[in-house]
Amino acid sequence: MRNAYNEDLRSISDQLVEMTRLAGSAIARASTALLDADLVLAESVITADHELDDARENLDNFAIDLLARQSPVATDLRTVVTAMRMSSDLERMGDLARHVAKVARLRYPASAVPPEMRATIVQMSQVASRIVAKAGSVIASRDLVEAAALEREDDAMDDLHRQLFAHLADPEFNLETQTAVDLTLVGRYYERFADHAVSVARRVTFLVTGDYDTVVDREDEEDAVLSS
Amino acid sequence: MRNAYNEDLRSISDQLVEMTRLAGSAIARASTALLDADLVLAESVITADHELDDARENLDNFAIDLLARQSPVATDLRTVVTAMRMSSDLERMGDLARHVAKVARLRYPASAVPPEMRATIVQMSQVASRIVAKAGSVIASRDLVEAAALEREDDAMDDLHRQLFAHLADPEFNLETQTAVDLTLVGRYYERFADHAVSVARRVTFLVTGDYDTVVDREDEEDAVLSS
Repeated sequence: MRNAYNEDLRSISDQLVEMTRLAGSAIARASTALLDADLVLAESVITADHELDDARENLDNFAIDLLARQSPVATDLRTVVTAMRMSSDLERMGDLARHVAKVARLRYPASAVPPEMRATIVQMSQVASRIVAKAGSVIASRDLVEAAALEREDDAMDDLHRQLFAHLADPEFNLETQTAVDLTLVGRYYERFADHAVSVARRVTFLVTGDYDTVVDREDEEDAVLSS
Repeated sequence: MRNAYNEDLRSISDQLVEMTRLAGSAIARASTALLDADLVLAESVITADHELDDARENLDNFAIDLLARQSPVATDLRTVVTAMRMSSDLERMGDLARHVAKVARLRYPASAVPPEMRATIVQMSQVASRIVAKAGSVIASRDLVEAAALEREDDAMDDLHRQLFAHLADPEFNLETQTAVDLTLVGRYYERFADHAVSVARRVTFLVTGDYDTVVDREDEEDAVLSS
């Protein structure tokens, strides 16, 4: 009985790692679609998002079933509840990747990203790909050093987000309003994507350390970007 | 024993209703701060947000404690798990209200909303206030007719969001890029605020009907706004 239970907990972890893989694939493909104005790729991201939705629903049902069957307490209960929160973060990351793909589709055959903004968006997309890969690694390893490294990726994303806003407000660039609107949204999608990855890492840290203060929302730091 | 249990479930519902009250107060005050460039009011929204964060933490701890003590199954288990999801939605609504207040603070003493956009933002703020009040009412009553009415408020929000984007893209308005960026973010904050209220109502509907399909994400409709 106890063995089957541990296998269930292991299965939950495996399902979460698989969700990070799906979210990572989505953001990488959406970024390429955005930067290359690739309609087929954009459509494929939009179509594939249901896989992450399904994965979340499956994981949540599995977790609720486990709660009902095993009535876990203490650490195990916390692990199951936290897993449902992580699945919510990961599903949302898929939605944000889909949003990026939708911007690409909306502006096709043009690119939503003008040449002078391209370098910033490329970097944001690279940080997004790295941070979701690290989230998967942190879930699998429960390594707090890796979890801390993931936070530094998010700091890099915040810097890039700040840089994006500075470019948008720079009269020298003289951007079309539509371009400014698109890039404001795209910037926010990448930033929120990274925030959810941080949230995943902090939930793992919380499970390992039991320190709830590690699960603070990313919003304060996000506000710092807007206020700078 | 059974009575204490039912009182616990009632307490969870009361806590959620109180959270809708806090979120409603936050969005109403943030909207006034934005529209009137009222720095003191903006600061008060930003400062008060921790109340909603605390309320969420308290509710979640209460729910986890209840799971550990009572090991609920079937409908009761679903009620407790769903309550934790609703508290997450409501806490996020508080964050979004705070974001609106931060935009007001950032542009003070100027207003972030130019006169020609004022009517649209006023209407978005009114829908936001109504929809969160309805969310509280739906939690308390579990009335499916009220839950359906709440969805129509969200349709109104989507229409206003579409209208906002149309204005932003209209060369006649000739908005500063900074204004366009601010309003793109503000529009998204209001729209997401309404989405989370819909999510709350749908979770209530799910508890009453057991039909998981009612808990679809608002993202598809949101995408429709971006694609229009």
